[in-house]
Amino acid sequence: MSIRIGISGYGNLGRGVEAAVKNAPDMEAVGVFTRRAPETVKTLTGLPVYKMEDAPSMAEKIDVMILCGGSAKDLPHQTPELARLFNVVDSFDTHAKIPEHFEKVNEASLSGGKLSIISAGWDPGLFSLNRMYGQAVLPNGQDYTFWGKGVSQGHSDAIRRIPGVKDARQYTIPVEAALERVRGGEQPELTAREKHTRECFVVAEEGADKKQIEESIVTMPNYFSDYDTTVHFISEEELLRDHGGIPHGGMVFRTGTTGLHGENHHVIEYKLKLDSNPEFTSSVLAACARAAFRLSQQGQTGCRTILDIPPALLHPESPEELRRKLL
Amino acid sequence: MSIRIGISGYGNLGRGVEAAVKNAPDMEAVGVFTRRAPETVKTLTGLPVYKMEDAPSMAEKIDVMILCGGSAKDLPHQTPELARLFNVVDSFDTHAKIPEHFEKVNEASLSGGKLSIISAGWDPGLFSLNRMYGQAVLPNGQDYTFWGKGVSQGHSDAIRRIPGVKDARQYTIPVEAALERVRGGEQPELTAREKHTRECFVVAEEGADKKQIEESIVTMPNYFSDYDTTVHFISEEELLRDHGGIPHGGMVFRTGTTGLHGENHHVIEYKLKLDSNPEFTSSVLAACARAAFRLSQQGQTGCRTILDIPPALLHPESPEELRRKLL
Repeated sequence: MSIRIGISGYGNLGRGVEAAVKNAPDMEAVGVFTRRAPETVKTLTGLPVYKMEDAPSMAEKIDVMILCGGSAKDLPHQTPELARLFNVVDSFDTHAKIPEHFEKVNEASLSGGKLSIISAGWDPGLFSLNRMYGQAVLPNGQDYTFWGKGVSQGHSDAIRRIPGVKDARQYTIPVEAALERVRGGEQPELTAREKHTRECFVVAEEGADKKQIEESIVTMPNYFSDYDTTVHFISEEELLRDHGGIPHGGMVFRTGTTGLHGENHHVIEYKLKLDSNPEFTSSVLAACARAAFRLSQQGQTGCRTILDIPPALLHPESPEELRRKLL
Repeated sequence: MSIRIGISGYGNLGRGVEAAVKNAPDMEAVGVFTRRAPETVKTLTGLPVYKMEDAPSMAEKIDVMILCGGSAKDLPHQTPELARLFNVVDSFDTHAKIPEHFEKVNEASLSGGKLSIISAGWDPGLFSLNRMYGQAVLPNGQDYTFWGKGVSQGHSDAIRRIPGVKDARQYTIPVEAALERVRGGEQPELTAREKHTRECFVVAEEGADKKQIEESIVTMPNYFSDYDTTVHFISEEELLRDHGGIPHGGMVFRTGTTGLHGENHHVIEYKLKLDSNPEFTSSVLAACARAAFRLSQQGQTGCRTILDIPPALLHPESPEELRRKLL
């Protein structure tokens, strides 16, 4: 019997979940739920599309609802709402607000007798997991996270808000020299500027002051002023042709020492190189949906994160098979 | 209240556990148990040393017993024996026999109402975990494991058994060209020879036939005949001076595709670079002892592997703190 998945929201992430569920041996998608007019939404695999308001009436037909909305406006209310009715999984990624989101979703899941997993993806998600394992194994040590090379949606949006900018794509790029120092185990203190550079590809409106746009970008507080930033002006055609993908990735390091006097050094590196950030995130969401279903079948309720989930529950095979093949 | 740890066996691994427990904020070591005469064993931190037969009488004073014997002769009987009396953790690493070992230890732990974790370390252990997460997230893909650069104890021992060899150290080294192909995402089929080379440093007995020794090494089935092997003859002084450490490490890759037509490629790489193989393994054992204690406190019994353990149980901080700091 397949795990029956509902998909709430149908942007890049929703499409990624649709494909990930199709690729999973033990899941099937039931349908997409949207706030748009259903007849205007065409799904990749011909999945039926329902109005969001129809979701509650389908609670019996869905084992896990995967929420594919945004962290800024959708998930803070959608996840708690749906968590009363469904086992849910979301990718809430506003790091500072995760504890608050957790509490709300936990309460909703408990009140509905359901199981929820929040903040699934790669950061938060697989990166968090690797920070945790690294710290647990090497208590005397240092964490490092590098992102990229990849497209930062938030930084691209910040550029688009500058007057005279028609479109933009921003890449976050780790600095090789910093990576080498971390891999060498020297545990350096690194500033934001030493860790990442930022490269921007900008399409200017006709007649816009490019000098002024560039100045606005490189001096923008929080987003760019603490980094070495390069700005390239290109045509709209070039942007679509050369920068249409959504690659990302990065590295989590734990470097530390063991021995009574810290005499032995160790470096743990976890690295992702992703062609498609949303599709990879969706694949983590699908694996977490499997775990949510199984935990719920065990009678567990309330909210979890990937830090709480017995790893084997994410994998389609049985614990016996996993011990035989992977240990 | 600290978690009280017993250390069974006092070789490289036992000393590593002693140091790891010392470095842990929430554990204390109670003593070492040995089959040698206790008065002949000097511990690094002055821990008391007891006869192995005295362990049962100290069951009330020890929360978790960490077993530091060998997988060939010690653990197959020691772990089941002690698992009736203690929560235990071992690093049993004879991959093919793990299912059988699991069954025996599980039965013992259940009969004693105790919790056990077997095959903790990095391979099996953290590497197994990364194979599992990789497969769960990228079901359409390929696994690769590379070991090294590092000292292989088994291969060093095999060389030492050759007549005329006084001592030897064997390094397993991943082939750069193979790593590049895997990192490039092309999912190659690789033979043993294409993945690793073997480099041997050998101290010959006086008057031994070096030509003959080299021939015996490079043609040895299972161990060397399937690899490109280099043999260097060096003096005993050089061996001790330049090859006294026990470094190791390696990489686990999962490379795979997402999308309805497998159009997007992803590479997950988990890499360890370890100055001391036994001390790092010991650090994993110590973290697993924390998890074993907590699972036991929850009333759980029976055998587990790292694939079954909720990750947060390995970390000294609370789930709330971990959510706040690591997600």
